[in-house]
Amino acid sequence: MPHEINPEFLRHAIRLATRNAVNGAGGPFGAVIVRNGRMISEGVNTVTASHDPTAHAEVNAIRAAATALGTFSLEGCELYSSCEPCPMCLAAAYWARVDAIFYGASAADADRAGFDDARLYKEFTTEPADRTLPARQLLADEARASFVAWVESPNKIDY
Amino acid sequence: MPHEINPEFLRHAIRLATRNAVNGAGGPFGAVIVRNGRMISEGVNTVTASHDPTAHAEVNAIRAAATALGTFSLEGCELYSSCEPCPMCLAAAYWARVDAIFYGASAADADRAGFDDARLYKEFTTEPADRTLPARQLLADEARASFVAWVESPNKIDY
Repeated sequence: MPHEINPEFLRHAIRLATRNAVNGAGGPFGAVIVRNGRMISEGVNTVTASHDPTAHAEVNAIRAAATALGTFSLEGCELYSSCEPCPMCLAAAYWARVDAIFYGASAADADRAGFDDARLYKEFTTEPADRTLPARQLLADEARASFVAWVESPNKIDY
Repeated sequence: MPHEINPEFLRHAIRLATRNAVNGAGGPFGAVIVRNGRMISEGVNTVTASHDPTAHAEVNAIRAAATALGTFSLEGCELYSSCEPCPMCLAAAYWARVDAIFYGASAADADRAGFDDARLYKEFTTEPADRTLPARQLLADEARASFVAWVESPNKIDY
Protein backbone atom coordinates (compact mmCIF):
# COMPACT_ATOMS: atom_id res chain seq x y z
CA MET A 1 0.00 0.00 0.00
CA PRO A 2 1.48 3.30 -1.02
CA HIS A 3 -0.67 5.25 1.43
CA GLU A 4 -1.35 5.12 5.13
CA ILE A 5 -4.68 3.57 6.11
CA ASN A 6 -6.89 5.56 8.44
CA PRO A 7 -9.82 3.44 9.65
CA GLU A 8 -11.69 6.58 10.68
CA PHE A 9 -12.37 7.37 7.04
CA LEU A 10 -13.90 3.94 6.60
CA ARG A 11 -15.95 4.40 9.77
CA HIS A 12 -17.26 7.63 8.27
CA ALA A 13 -18.23 5.81 5.05
CA ILE A 14 -19.99 3.12 7.12
CA ARG A 15 -21.91 5.78 9.07
CA LEU A 16 -23.01 7.36 5.77
CA ALA A 17 -24.16 3.94 4.56
CA THR A 18 -26.14 3.18 7.71
CA ARG A 19 -27.76 6.61 7.77
CA ASN A 20 -28.72 6.26 4.10
CA ALA A 21 -30.41 2.93 4.83
CA VAL A 22 -32.22 4.16 7.93
CA ASN A 23 -33.63 7.33 6.37
CA GLY A 24 -34.68 5.52 3.17
CA ALA A 25 -32.65 7.79 0.90
CA GLY A 26 -31.05 4.86 -0.92
CA GLY A 27 -29.07 1.65 -0.62
CA PRO A 28 -26.83 1.00 2.42
CA PHE A 29 -23.62 2.19 0.81
CA GLY A 30 -21.27 5.08 1.58
CA ALA A 31 -17.87 6.11 0.26
CA VAL A 32 -15.31 8.85 0.69
CA ILE A 33 -12.29 10.00 -1.31
CA VAL A 34 -9.18 10.98 0.64
CA ARG A 35 -6.06 12.80 -0.48
CA ASN A 36 -3.05 13.50 1.71
CA GLY A 37 -5.00 12.47 4.79
CA ARG A 38 -7.88 14.83 4.08
CA MET A 39 -11.37 13.87 2.95
CA ILE A 40 -12.18 15.66 -0.30
CA SER A 41 -15.58 14.14 -1.10
CA GLU A 42 -18.22 11.75 0.13
CA GLY A 43 -21.02 9.86 -1.58
CA VAL A 44 -23.98 7.68 -0.76
CA ASN A 45 -26.10 5.47 -2.97
CA THR A 46 -28.81 7.59 -4.64
CA VAL A 47 -30.04 5.12 -7.30
CA THR A 48 -33.71 5.34 -6.35
CA ALA A 49 -33.74 8.97 -5.18
CA SER A 50 -32.04 10.39 -8.27
CA HIS A 51 -33.42 7.90 -10.85
CA ASP A 52 -29.89 6.96 -11.80
CA PRO A 53 -28.79 3.31 -11.90
CA THR A 54 -25.14 4.45 -11.93
CA ALA A 55 -25.44 6.54 -8.75
CA HIS A 56 -23.63 4.15 -6.45
CA ALA A 57 -21.81 5.59 -3.45
CA GLU A 58 -18.36 5.16 -5.00
CA VAL A 59 -19.36 6.67 -8.36
CA ASN A 60 -20.95 9.62 -6.58
CA ALA A 61 -17.85 10.11 -4.39
CA ILE A 62 -15.51 9.83 -7.40
CA ARG A 63 -17.55 12.33 -9.42
CA ALA A 64 -17.70 14.77 -6.51
CA ALA A 65 -13.95 14.51 -5.89
CA ALA A 66 -13.13 15.07 -9.57
CA THR A 67 -15.42 18.09 -9.62
CA ALA A 68 -13.81 19.43 -6.43
CA LEU A 69 -10.31 19.01 -7.86
CA GLY A 70 -11.26 20.16 -11.37
CA THR A 71 -9.69 17.13 -13.04
CA PHE A 72 -10.69 13.70 -14.32
CA SER A 73 -7.74 12.07 -12.52
CA LEU A 74 -7.77 11.16 -8.84
CA GLU A 75 -4.16 10.05 -8.81
CA GLY A 76 -2.81 10.36 -5.29
CA CYS A 77 -6.22 9.66 -3.77
CA GLU A 78 -7.66 6.68 -1.90
CA LEU A 79 -11.22 5.38 -2.05
CA TYR A 80 -12.78 4.23 1.22
CA SER A 81 -16.05 2.36 0.73
CA SER A 82 -18.42 0.78 3.25
CA CYS A 83 -18.64 -2.25 0.96
CA GLU A 84 -16.42 -3.91 -1.62
CA PRO A 85 -17.02 -1.99 -4.85
CA CYS A 86 -19.24 -3.67 -7.44
CA PRO A 87 -17.71 -4.18 -10.92
CA MET A 88 -19.02 -0.80 -12.10
CA CYS A 89 -17.47 1.00 -9.14
CA LEU A 90 -14.24 -1.01 -9.27
CA ALA A 91 -13.80 -0.12 -12.95
CA ALA A 92 -14.68 3.51 -12.15
CA ALA A 93 -11.90 3.48 -9.55
CA TYR A 94 -9.45 2.27 -12.21
CA TRP A 95 -10.57 4.95 -14.68
CA ALA A 96 -10.28 7.56 -11.89
CA ARG A 97 -6.75 6.26 -11.18
CA VAL A 98 -7.11 6.19 -7.41
CA ASP A 99 -4.06 4.74 -5.68
CA ALA A 100 -5.84 2.28 -3.39
CA ILE A 101 -9.23 1.01 -2.23
CA PHE A 102 -10.16 0.24 1.38
CA TYR A 103 -13.50 -1.41 2.01
CA GLY A 104 -15.58 -2.87 4.84
CA ALA A 105 -18.24 -5.46 3.95
CA SER A 106 -17.65 -7.94 1.14
CA ALA A 107 -19.56 -8.51 -2.11
CA ALA A 108 -20.86 -11.72 -0.51
CA ASP A 109 -22.26 -9.68 2.40
CA ALA A 110 -23.99 -7.40 -0.12
CA ASP A 111 -25.39 -10.44 -1.87
CA ARG A 112 -26.88 -11.75 1.37
CA ALA A 113 -28.58 -8.36 1.86
CA GLY A 114 -30.22 -8.73 -1.55
CA PHE A 115 -27.80 -6.94 -3.87
CA ASP A 116 -26.50 -8.44 -7.09
CA ASP A 117 -22.81 -7.69 -6.60
CA ALA A 118 -21.51 -11.26 -6.38
CA ARG A 119 -23.64 -12.45 -9.29
CA LEU A 120 -22.45 -9.50 -11.34
CA TYR A 121 -18.79 -10.36 -10.65
CA LYS A 122 -19.46 -13.84 -12.02
CA GLU A 123 -20.64 -12.38 -15.32
CA PHE A 124 -17.14 -10.97 -15.82
CA THR A 125 -15.59 -14.41 -15.68
CA THR A 126 -18.24 -15.81 -18.04
CA GLU A 127 -17.79 -15.96 -21.81
CA PRO A 128 -19.78 -13.11 -23.42
CA ALA A 129 -22.02 -15.59 -25.27
CA ASP A 130 -23.05 -17.20 -21.98
CA ARG A 131 -23.83 -14.02 -20.04
CA THR A 132 -27.35 -13.20 -18.91
CA LEU A 133 -27.25 -9.84 -20.72
CA PRO A 134 -26.88 -10.54 -24.45
CA ALA A 135 -24.35 -8.42 -26.34
CA ARG A 136 -23.81 -8.60 -30.07
CA GLN A 137 -21.24 -6.98 -32.34
CA LEU A 138 -22.18 -5.50 -35.70
CA LEU A 139 -20.81 -2.87 -38.13
CA ALA A 140 -17.30 -3.43 -36.76
CA ASP A 141 -15.58 -1.91 -39.79
CA GLU A 142 -17.75 1.20 -39.77
CA ALA A 143 -17.21 1.61 -36.04
CA ARG A 144 -13.41 1.54 -36.30
CA ALA A 145 -13.62 4.78 -38.28
CA SER A 146 -14.22 6.60 -34.98
CA PHE A 147 -10.83 5.44 -33.71
CA VAL A 148 -9.12 6.49 -36.94
CA ALA A 149 -10.70 9.94 -36.49
CA TRP A 150 -9.44 10.01 -32.90
CA VAL A 151 -5.87 9.02 -33.73
CA GLU A 152 -5.74 11.63 -36.50
CA SER A 153 -7.51 14.39 -34.57
CA PRO A 154 -5.30 17.40 -33.73
CA ASN A 155 -7.89 18.43 -31.10
CA LYS A 156 -7.83 15.34 -28.91
CA ILE A 157 -7.04 15.47 -25.21
CA ASP A 158 -5.55 12.15 -24.11
CA TYR A 159 -6.82 10.62 -20.90
CA MET B 1 -32.25 -11.49 -28.78
CA PRO B 2 -35.61 -10.35 -27.47
CA HIS B 3 -35.57 -7.18 -29.54
CA GLU B 4 -35.17 -6.32 -33.17
CA ILE B 5 -31.80 -4.91 -34.15
CA ASN B 6 -31.79 -1.68 -36.11
CA PRO B 7 -28.27 -0.93 -37.41
CA GLU B 8 -29.25 2.71 -37.96
CA PHE B 9 -29.16 3.31 -34.21
CA LEU B 10 -25.63 1.95 -34.12
CA ARG B 11 -24.67 4.11 -37.10
CA HIS B 12 -25.96 7.11 -35.15
CA ALA B 13 -23.83 6.14 -32.14
CA ILE B 14 -20.79 5.78 -34.42
CA ARG B 15 -21.44 9.21 -35.94
CA LEU B 16 -21.62 10.68 -32.41
CA ALA B 17 -18.32 9.00 -31.58
CA THR B 18 -16.54 10.25 -34.68
CA ARG B 19 -17.85 13.79 -34.26
CA ASN B 20 -16.75 13.80 -30.60
CA ALA B 21 -13.23 12.79 -31.63
CA VAL B 22 -12.99 15.29 -34.48
CA ASN B 23 -14.17 18.29 -32.49
CA GLY B 24 -11.98 17.41 -29.49
CA ALA B 25 -14.90 17.25 -27.05
CA GLY B 26 -13.85 13.87 -25.69
CA GLY B 27 -12.98 10.27 -26.46
CA PRO B 28 -14.24 8.61 -29.68
CA PHE B 29 -17.25 6.95 -28.11
CA GLY B 30 -21.00 7.37 -28.62
CA ALA B 31 -24.04 5.51 -27.37
CA VAL B 32 -27.83 5.63 -27.58
CA ILE B 33 -30.66 4.04 -25.62
CA VAL B 34 -33.62 2.75 -27.61
CA ARG B 35 -37.06 1.65 -26.44
CA ASN B 36 -39.78 0.27 -28.67
CA GLY B 37 -37.82 1.32 -31.75
CA ARG B 38 -37.46 4.90 -30.60
CA MET B 39 -34.25 6.59 -29.41
CA ILE B 40 -34.80 8.01 -25.93
CA SER B 41 -31.29 9.26 -25.15
CA GLU B 42 -27.81 9.64 -26.52
CA GLY B 43 -24.41 10.12 -24.92
CA VAL B 44 -20.82 10.81 -25.85
CA ASN B 45 -17.65 10.52 -23.83
CA THR B 46 -17.17 13.71 -21.77
CA VAL B 47 -14.42 12.56 -19.38
CA THR B 48 -12.05 15.43 -20.10
CA ALA B 49 -14.67 18.11 -20.82
CA SER B 50 -16.71 17.51 -17.66
CA HIS B 51 -13.86 16.46 -15.35
CA ASP B 52 -15.61 13.18 -14.69
CA PRO B 53 -13.79 9.85 -15.09
CA THR B 54 -17.16 8.04 -15.12
CA ALA B 55 -18.59 10.11 -17.99
CA HIS B 56 -18.27 7.43 -20.67
CA ALA B 57 -20.74 7.50 -23.56
CA GLU B 58 -22.76 4.54 -22.26
CA VAL B 59 -22.96 5.89 -18.69
CA ASN B 60 -24.03 9.29 -20.01
CA ALA B 61 -26.67 7.70 -22.27
CA ILE B 62 -27.96 5.48 -19.45
CA ARG B 63 -28.17 8.40 -17.03
CA ALA B 64 -29.97 10.56 -19.61
CA ALA B 65 -32.45 7.79 -20.43
CA ALA B 66 -33.23 7.14 -16.77
CA THR B 67 -33.77 10.86 -16.24
CA ALA B 68 -36.02 11.03 -19.31
CA LEU B 69 -38.10 8.08 -18.12
CA GLY B 70 -38.08 9.11 -14.45
CA THR B 71 -36.94 5.70 -13.25
CA PHE B 72 -33.74 3.87 -12.36
CA SER B 73 -34.73 0.87 -14.49
CA LEU B 74 -34.24 0.70 -18.24
CA GLU B 75 -36.00 -2.63 -18.60
CA GLY B 76 -37.35 -2.94 -22.13
CA CYS B 77 -34.54 -0.81 -23.55
CA GLU B 78 -31.50 -1.62 -25.69
CA LEU B 79 -28.08 -0.01 -25.51
CA TYR B 80 -26.34 0.71 -28.81
CA SER B 81 -22.68 1.67 -28.37
CA SER B 82 -20.05 2.57 -30.95
CA CYS B 83 -17.61 0.35 -29.04
CA GLU B 84 -17.84 -2.70 -26.80
CA PRO B 85 -18.63 -1.34 -23.33
CA CYS B 86 -15.74 -1.24 -20.86
CA PRO B 87 -16.28 -3.11 -17.56
CA MET B 88 -17.70 0.03 -15.91
CA CYS B 89 -20.23 0.53 -18.70
CA LEU B 90 -21.06 -3.17 -18.98
CA ALA B 91 -21.80 -3.32 -15.25
CA ALA B 92 -23.80 -0.08 -15.55
CA ALA B 93 -25.87 -1.77 -18.27
CA TYR B 94 -26.58 -4.66 -15.90
CA TRP B 95 -27.60 -2.31 -13.09
CA ALA B 96 -29.77 -0.37 -15.54
CA ARG B 97 -31.38 -3.69 -16.59
CA VAL B 98 -31.27 -3.02 -20.32
CA ASP B 99 -32.47 -5.99 -22.36
CA ALA B 100 -29.59 -6.15 -24.83
CA ILE B 101 -26.37 -4.48 -25.97
CA PHE B 102 -25.35 -3.90 -29.60
CA TYR B 103 -21.87 -2.59 -30.23
CA GLY B 104 -19.52 -1.79 -33.10
CA ALA B 105 -15.77 -1.79 -32.43
CA SER B 106 -14.26 -4.27 -29.96
CA ALA B 107 -12.35 -3.70 -26.72
CA ALA B 108 -9.25 -4.81 -28.64
CA ASP B 109 -9.87 -2.04 -31.20
CA ALA B 110 -10.14 0.46 -28.34
CA ASP B 111 -6.90 -0.86 -26.90
CA ARG B 112 -5.09 -0.32 -30.20
CA ALA B 113 -6.31 3.31 -30.18
CA GLY B 114 -4.72 3.81 -26.75
CA PHE B 115 -7.58 3.03 -24.37
CA ASP B 116 -7.26 0.67 -21.42
CA ASP B 117 -10.41 -1.38 -22.00
CA ALA B 118 -8.81 -4.75 -22.72
CA ARG B 119 -6.31 -4.41 -19.87
CA LEU B 120 -9.15 -3.48 -17.54
CA TYR B 121 -11.14 -6.58 -18.54
CA LYS B 122 -8.10 -8.68 -17.58
CA GLU B 123 -8.16 -7.24 -14.05
CA PHE B 124 -11.60 -8.80 -13.56
CA THR B 125 -10.25 -12.27 -14.20
CA THR B 126 -7.27 -11.65 -11.92
CA GLU B 127 -7.31 -12.54 -8.22
CA PRO B 128 -7.84 -9.35 -6.15
CA ALA B 129 -4.41 -9.69 -4.51
CA ASP B 130 -2.71 -9.67 -7.92
CA ARG B 131 -4.52 -6.67 -9.40
CA THR B 132 -2.69 -3.47 -10.23
CA LEU B 133 -5.06 -1.45 -8.03
CA PRO B 134 -4.62 -2.65 -4.45
CA ALA B 135 -7.81 -3.21 -2.44
CA ARG B 136 -7.88 -4.17 1.21
CA GLN B 137 -10.71 -5.14 3.51
CA LEU B 138 -10.93 -3.86 7.07
CA LEU B 139 -13.62 -3.32 9.73
CA ALA B 140 -15.77 -6.03 8.12
CA ASP B 141 -17.91 -6.57 11.23
CA GLU B 142 -18.58 -2.87 11.70
CA ALA B 143 -19.45 -2.52 8.03
CA ARG B 144 -22.05 -5.29 8.08
CA ALA B 145 -24.11 -3.14 10.46
CA SER B 146 -25.15 -1.06 7.43
CA PHE B 147 -26.77 -4.11 5.86
CA VAL B 148 -28.55 -4.98 9.11
CA ALA B 149 -29.91 -1.42 9.16
CA TRP B 150 -31.03 -1.84 5.54
CA VAL B 151 -32.78 -5.16 6.07
CA GLU B 152 -34.59 -3.78 9.12
CA SER B 153 -35.41 -0.37 7.62
CA PRO B 154 -39.13 0.25 7.03
CA ASN B 155 -38.19 3.12 4.69
CA LYS B 156 -36.14 1.19 2.15
CA ILE B 157 -36.97 1.17 -1.56
CA ASP B 158 -35.71 -2.04 -3.13
CA TYR B 159 -33.89 -1.78 -6.43
